[in-house]
Amino acid sequence: MPLKLIGMKGSLCTARPLLLLAEKGITDFEFQDVDFASGENKSEAHLALQPFGQVPALDDNGFILFESRAICRYLASKFADRGPSLLPAAGDDKAWALFEQWASVEINSFDVFAQQIVVQKLVMPMMGRAVNEEVVAANRKILSDKFVAFDRILGKQAYMGGDGYSLIDVFYMPVVGALFGLGEAELITKHPNVKAWWDRVSAREAFQKASK
Amino acid sequence: MPLKLIGMKGSLCTARPLLLLAEKGITDFEFQDVDFASGENKSEAHLALQPFGQVPALDDNGFILFESRAICRYLASKFADRGPSLLPAAGDDKAWALFEQWASVEINSFDVFAQQIVVQKLVMPMMGRAVNEEVVAANRKILSDKFVAFDRILGKQAYMGGDGYSLIDVFYMPVVGALFGLGEAELITKHPNVKAWWDRVSAREAFQKASK
Repeated sequence: MPLKLIGMKGSLCTARPLLLLAEKGITDFEFQDVDFASGENKSEAHLALQPFGQVPALDDNGFILFESRAICRYLASKFADRGPSLLPAAGDDKAWALFEQWASVEINSFDVFAQQIVVQKLVMPMMGRAVNEEVVAANRKILSDKFVAFDRILGKQAYMGGDGYSLIDVFYMPVVGALFGLGEAELITKHPNVKAWWDRVSAREAFQKASK
Repeated sequence: MPLKLIGMKGSLCTARPLLLLAEKGITDFEFQDVDFASGENKSEAHLALQPFGQVPALDDNGFILFESRAICRYLASKFADRGPSLLPAAGDDKAWALFEQWASVEINSFDVFAQQIVVQKLVMPMMGRAVNEEVVAANRKILSDKFVAFDRILGKQAYMGGDGYSLIDVFYMPVVGALFGLGEAELITKHPNVKAWWDRVSAREAFQKASK
């Protein structure tokens, strides 16, 4: 049985493992689209795979795994010898410690705030619901401050996880790309080091392919 | 130079590595308290350690690391032969994949919502600011739904990371403990499997000691 990715087209969390697979040049996998409109994500069959009724999930020959970043880590390790490495060397405890530091930064200093903007400006209109502009403004303000720190960080290292492109960049890219599409480009482009990082990573062939 | 933990007394993020150190029976470390009231966390000296002006950070003989969960992972690995193991076996890719899944669940399905309640009910009053009851109610509602899924999960496994106590439980414990102190116990106690989990982990000697 080939690898099966259970997800939703257009979902930013689903885009993470899709970008990872593109980086690794893996095309031999099945994609199963979950129909959120009909409530398929809350069906007993889906909850048995993903108890929170979310996507994505992975089925690797019966081994079930969910949470997009965990799936990316698993696939990056499984396909370690394909494409760019994306993970620190096994056994390098300090490199792994810093990898985990930057992995936590992605969620705690970027994603939790960026997702609030995505929910308001992308998801709410799709559901025919009103955008809460106060929530957008509050999270834009927080992110704007966070990007001052990111600009400082990216003045010392070329990528979000250190000196080389890694899985940490993959974690950011779908949501940063979405911010551009939602009219929030300035959050990124007003900081020269952040803009230079985004220009570098978004020019990658895998991102260009995965974004089509 | 002994291990130095830079943190703030009463900070729930600082409580994570303190609990980990208690589990490992490590008492030979220095604790450096950052004075948020005077803005020390935004000083150039502190920003050089932690670019977002937060705590905790770790200084292990000049190796600087921040983000509480990354610090816990590093210390759990450094002191692997002390106390309970807390991490999957090296090289067991599937056990690590599931560990990462449950680590993501802790942040994405618990912490982001629970922290909103903590900010409103604990931090705002400390800063002399008004509690936004709408934010509290909205996050209580989301968490209440999430705990239905957690009860299902904890009906199949005894701990948040699987069949044994692990670092994943350590990640949850300071914030779950805080919810009890903030009058939000019912979120946990109304679900029998979640309550049984909390009774198990909160009875641990290290948690009792670290909570004093």
